Amino acid sequence: MRDRMSEPYPTVRLRPKANARAIRHGFPWVYSNEVVLDRRTSRMEPGSLVVLEDAERQATGVATLNPGSKIAVRMLDRDPGARIDADWLQLRFRAALDHREMLYDAPFYRLVHAEADGLPGLVVDRFGDVLVVQPNAAWTERLLEPIADALMAVTGAKSLIKNASGRARGLEGLDDESLVLSGTIEGPVAVPMNGAVYMADLVSGQKTGLFFDQRENHAFAARLAQGRSVLDVFSHVGGFALAALAGGAASALSVDGSEAALGLAREGAALGGMAERFGTRKGDAFDALAALGAEGERFGLVICDPPAFAPSKQAREAGLRAYERIARLAAPLVEEGGYLCLCSCSHAVDLQAFLAASARGIGRGGRRGRLIHTGFAGPDHPQLPQLAESGYLKALFFRL
Amino acid sequence: MRDRMSEPYPTVRLRPKANARAIRHGFPWVYSNEVVLDRRTSRMEPGSLVVLEDAERQATGVATLNPGSKIAVRMLDRDPGARIDADWLQLRFRAALDHREMLYDAPFYRLVHAEADGLPGLVVDRFGDVLVVQPNAAWTERLLEPIADALMAVTGAKSLIKNASGRARGLEGLDDESLVLSGTIEGPVAVPMNGAVYMADLVSGQKTGLFFDQRENHAFAARLAQGRSVLDVFSHVGGFALAALAGGAASALSVDGSEAALGLAREGAALGGMAERFGTRKGDAFDALAALGAEGERFGLVICDPPAFAPSKQAREAGLRAYERIARLAAPLVEEGGYLCLCSCSHAVDLQAFLAASARGIGRGGRRGRLIHTGFAGPDHPQLPQLAESGYLKALFFRL
Repeated sequence: MRDRMSEPYPTVRLRPKANARAIRHGFPWVYSNEVVLDRRTSRMEPGSLVVLEDAERQATGVATLNPGSKIAVRMLDRDPGARIDADWLQLRFRAALDHREMLYDAPFYRLVHAEADGLPGLVVDRFGDVLVVQPNAAWTERLLEPIADALMAVTGAKSLIKNASGRARGLEGLDDESLVLSGTIEGPVAVPMNGAVYMADLVSGQKTGLFFDQRENHAFAARLAQGRSVLDVFSHVGGFALAALAGGAASALSVDGSEAALGLAREGAALGGMAERFGTRKGDAFDALAALGAEGERFGLVICDPPAFAPSKQAREAGLRAYERIARLAAPLVEEGGYLCLCSCSHAVDLQAFLAASARGIGRGGRRGRLIHTGFAGPDHPQLPQLAESGYLKALFFRL
Repeated sequence: MRDRMSEPYPTVRLRPKANARAIRHGFPWVYSNEVVLDRRTSRMEPGSLVVLEDAERQATGVATLNPGSKIAVRMLDRDPGARIDADWLQLRFRAALDHREMLYDAPFYRLVHAEADGLPGLVVDRFGDVLVVQPNAAWTERLLEPIADALMAVTGAKSLIKNASGRARGLEGLDDESLVLSGTIEGPVAVPMNGAVYMADLVSGQKTGLFFDQRENHAFAARLAQGRSVLDVFSHVGGFALAALAGGAASALSVDGSEAALGLAREGAALGGMAERFGTRKGDAFDALAALGAEGERFGLVICDPPAFAPSKQAREAGLRAYERIARLAAPLVEEGGYLCLCSCSHAVDLQAFLAASARGIGRGGRRGRLIHTGFAGPDHPQLPQLAESGYLKALFFRL
């Protein structure tokens, strides 16, 4: 590590107004207006390791400081004597790995989910021998080398990609330059999930090339797909469609605005031996929904998994209107007795608001729906209870 | 039917203050202060079939009236010309059955879940050839014979039990006398779920002898059980414990206050060939948790699925304290890196309040938990979106 082992970490102190109790009870962040940013601490390198003291100069643990970020301090360890070294990192990665190995038969999952895995701002997705690391907080960028070493040691992975596309990096003052840090990546990676094969383009794809967070919801949709025709709107690389085909769907049609994503979906379908039952349609999702409605098409299962329509609180109302519109356009495409799955990955839209907008849209689409299942991000995306209200992913399944 | 086919149903009118729009948009109830209860309508037999008119005398559909219930009117059909006859009942039961047959390989499930299956106040659980009917609204009691006939016709079931233990029956002015209406029941029924076998005592058991609503949560717990020791508190007939053993748990201990329930759990374990890995402990759950803590026992997976601690709004605060206490007593029993599942079936406690109480309890138990999964009642327990806030069952899975 770049911090010399022999030296204690410098201290940073909470202001009296800070909620030291919340921090002691597991809240992982200190905002910039809650911490003393004087000449010394303001000049510290973003991502510096520090000992956090409360206003009475009691050490509360080891943290990382980014004087330029609204989230100025992120807690790393409740033990003020902890050293954030290779052993420490390996211990955290081992704990994260144990949990995923309990859950999944094959090494394809979100391996590290930031705060809830005790590694604030660090996200790691695992695609077999390839790790995709998102260093979304300054300390993870600063310690990227030891982090990468510890990850390779714990997992035995052969390649490691740094993905710098995370929106949070800008808030931390970090660049957006992605690169292969270790090993080589030759073309898309085949990812087995829910009985299907997905092709993930880890270098040029959206997010980290594949959305692991929807796996449980894909699996639930597959249970409703047997013998049915399926429409998967905002399909990306075929998340819901290929799972549905693996679950016995008669046919599936993927709609997406990206021809590259649809091409990967077709590749996945071919690898899974389901190409004959699979079709794609490139285009704007709203237009496609309206056109399919005008064509009189009907499906036994319709899924709409749009990008975040409400990525911020300011966008909440517009986002809810967009979710309602999706529901209104999608509902008429569902057969009588068929199923409709509506998803939101907007932090700013909570479950009740999303449910209300969805039900309203279904009603305006001339249908009535009964809610049969509510799904969230899968268990490889743990949450701190203190931050769980922000659980971003919601999937509502209706029977119409 | 007891209503002569040739006669139109009598009319009942909404008062101007009633929210006719909500009813048109699918809200299924009209409260007694929203409907005109004059000399004629006040004297109607509870459970009478009526045509509901809005304040402008526009017919809004066929409903059932119980002048003595706070929920005076329950909507049955949006078509004012509908006849609630054998065909109508069979159509609703067929639609409900189609959904369950889509979801499950074997005929063991909640077949009818009241309002959300278009059959207000009617609950039917299916145990293979045995149906357990809960007529919880006056109309279902009044039409029990045609309901039973239609159910037998649609499902081909051989026996039918009337379970009159539902709390709602008192509000509807109904008695609590359960009886076998059709066929014979000889001893407990073996129910296959999640790879385990459960013994359900349908005549003298709690609720309808088995809780189908937890099936998906049992399945999730089983994924966390492989190779672990499991403690299942408030175990009833072994819901979580037997699923965990089927999922590969090293051992499971069921705690319950009812020796009869534990006996059925042991029978189920024996039938599933898992008796050697299964133990039971009769006693008060709080006492047992405290005693196990004092004995220094540790488990890889602990589940607490108590009865509703907050069955009413008045009981909410006391209920939350009880949930917190459960969490505080259970958390120390979980191994480092192990899992804790906490359940609530209280209408009056919403998800956020239950999560907060659980996290607080875990903290007071000296531990920290990350939320990995939130589960609700299974998809054979659909909900009307308009009533979905009352979704009673919540299961929170934490990693400690």
